[in-house]
Amino acid sequence: MSDITDTIMIGAGPSALAAAVYTTREDIGTVLYEKGVVGGLAAITDQVDNYPGFPDGVEGMKLAEQLEAQAKRFGADIQYGDVSAITRDDDVLTVTVDGKPVQAKTVLIATGSDYNKINVPGEAEYYGRGVHYCATCDGAFYREKKLAVVGGGNSGVQETIFLTRFASHIDLLVRSTIKASEVLQQELQQYIDSGQVTVHLDTTVREIQATDGKVDRVLLDSNGEANELDVDGVFVFVGLKPNTQILDGSGVELDSMGLIKTDNKLMTNIEGVFASGDVRSGATMQIASAVGEGATAALSIREYLDEHKRSSAQPA
Amino acid sequence: MSDITDTIMIGAGPSALAAAVYTTREDIGTVLYEKGVVGGLAAITDQVDNYPGFPDGVEGMKLAEQLEAQAKRFGADIQYGDVSAITRDDDVLTVTVDGKPVQAKTVLIATGSDYNKINVPGEAEYYGRGVHYCATCDGAFYREKKLAVVGGGNSGVQETIFLTRFASHIDLLVRSTIKASEVLQQELQQYIDSGQVTVHLDTTVREIQATDGKVDRVLLDSNGEANELDVDGVFVFVGLKPNTQILDGSGVELDSMGLIKTDNKLMTNIEGVFASGDVRSGATMQIASAVGEGATAALSIREYLDEHKRSSAQPA
Repeated sequence: MSDITDTIMIGAGPSALAAAVYTTREDIGTVLYEKGVVGGLAAITDQVDNYPGFPDGVEGMKLAEQLEAQAKRFGADIQYGDVSAITRDDDVLTVTVDGKPVQAKTVLIATGSDYNKINVPGEAEYYGRGVHYCATCDGAFYREKKLAVVGGGNSGVQETIFLTRFASHIDLLVRSTIKASEVLQQELQQYIDSGQVTVHLDTTVREIQATDGKVDRVLLDSNGEANELDVDGVFVFVGLKPNTQILDGSGVELDSMGLIKTDNKLMTNIEGVFASGDVRSGATMQIASAVGEGATAALSIREYLDEHKRSSAQPA
Repeated sequence: MSDITDTIMIGAGPSALAAAVYTTREDIGTVLYEKGVVGGLAAITDQVDNYPGFPDGVEGMKLAEQLEAQAKRFGADIQYGDVSAITRDDDVLTVTVDGKPVQAKTVLIATGSDYNKINVPGEAEYYGRGVHYCATCDGAFYREKKLAVVGGGNSGVQETIFLTRFASHIDLLVRSTIKASEVLQQELQQYIDSGQVTVHLDTTVREIQATDGKVDRVLLDSNGEANELDVDGVFVFVGLKPNTQILDGSGVELDSMGLIKTDNKLMTNIEGVFASGDVRSGATMQIASAVGEGATAALSIREYLDEHKRSSAQPA
């Protein structure tokens, strides 16, 4: 039985690393599998201004490194590996890592979500430094600046309205027509009327350009014609992709957006399988929330392991 | 209408300070009222080892100061004041501060919970430095050390079992008899049998003593006779007191433990009144969770304010 790990965490972003600080500090055997970057989206974020505890902000990479160091300090085993399946048989969970089965008593799914991209030149290069996907995270860096927002759905319009509290002007770039709710469109209208927002329909971005490393222009296809706009930053809201491909066939329940449903202990509908952070239904896409949920999930995992030990030690 | 604050936060512990970082950064008018110590329990904790982001741990006071500085950086208004009531009339919430009414569109209750004390000499003096109330927080500081645990209820026995993973020996001090569940008592028995735990019934603590500032002894009344034990630390589990006195007459729903019930947006049953951190039903008594909930509550408050603005701007 000793080759059954107490808990396997899938992903090594802020939520899993926080959970691992808790579990390993209590001598719960913990292995994390990461297929991309340890630290997740935090690691590729330029500056994190709102993670509580760092009054002047902290570089995303530095925060990620510190979370990793803290988890490792207490004994977290972080491995690179691609998880393709989770199955439950009796009391044991089997996780398929790089095609090989690994057994665990509990699993924490903390694979996060990715922002959908528009896949144009400049988008990846200036990620987090002029190209953004989270208005709550980065909007405040654009006080009295000019922005382009990409996306005409609910989130595109809602975040445009939100960004008006910072930006002096916003060009809203919409591929066809605005699809947002009537209420949001009516609210947007007041910012159009005041001239703070200009809507460009039938418009796609061809390229995001920068001078001396600072984003200053977007090239557009607008009604079939080339156009360009001077902006200080670009926010893209064209959807979110939860990283749940590994759950195909697992039976783990998702909500209508494809995020994982959990109870108030952060357990999914599968016994012993927990979820936290940006992949969880109700996620805020904030590092602070992901970390807090990681801590909560770790305590639930400990409780589950204790109860399980208790019930298996005591024949009914 | 301009004298109605966007959001009033009651308490200025980690959860409210984290929430205030979020709200103020988005120009949501935010006033915090604290009647005790800014930073809450964190501020009076010696060393915090498991707040994610600080790989070598951080002094509780320093973490509290940094949370306060960060909230103030974005414009949080932290005031000392004693809140005695919250009432709702139509769309406005009225909070009574030092006997005077203050109006707000939303309220966040983040007053925390206090650990019940045994009120003996030495308890307050060595708080966080030999006298502890949270095994998850501080148990790991006692690897291979001798502990006394006070309390014979479910939490006393459960935390004693938990602390056996760190401590070499535990004296469990119980005022009358053990009141914990049968299952917990049976599990405890194995540690009694192995000699790792010794139970002292009909025993109360008279004093906690230290040498050169280090706790090293507890003086007891045991079966009516004076006794003493050499220990490296004392954990007290005699209940938790949620700080909800201010809610008398407010109509805010509490759970059976007296903690505030919330929905998945952290709103209570009263429109516009939110709760986060240690005072919330489901609280883990962990700074990371309290901070994460603060961030989540702040986003819910923003959403509530936006929707409210929208609906009041649009007659049905």
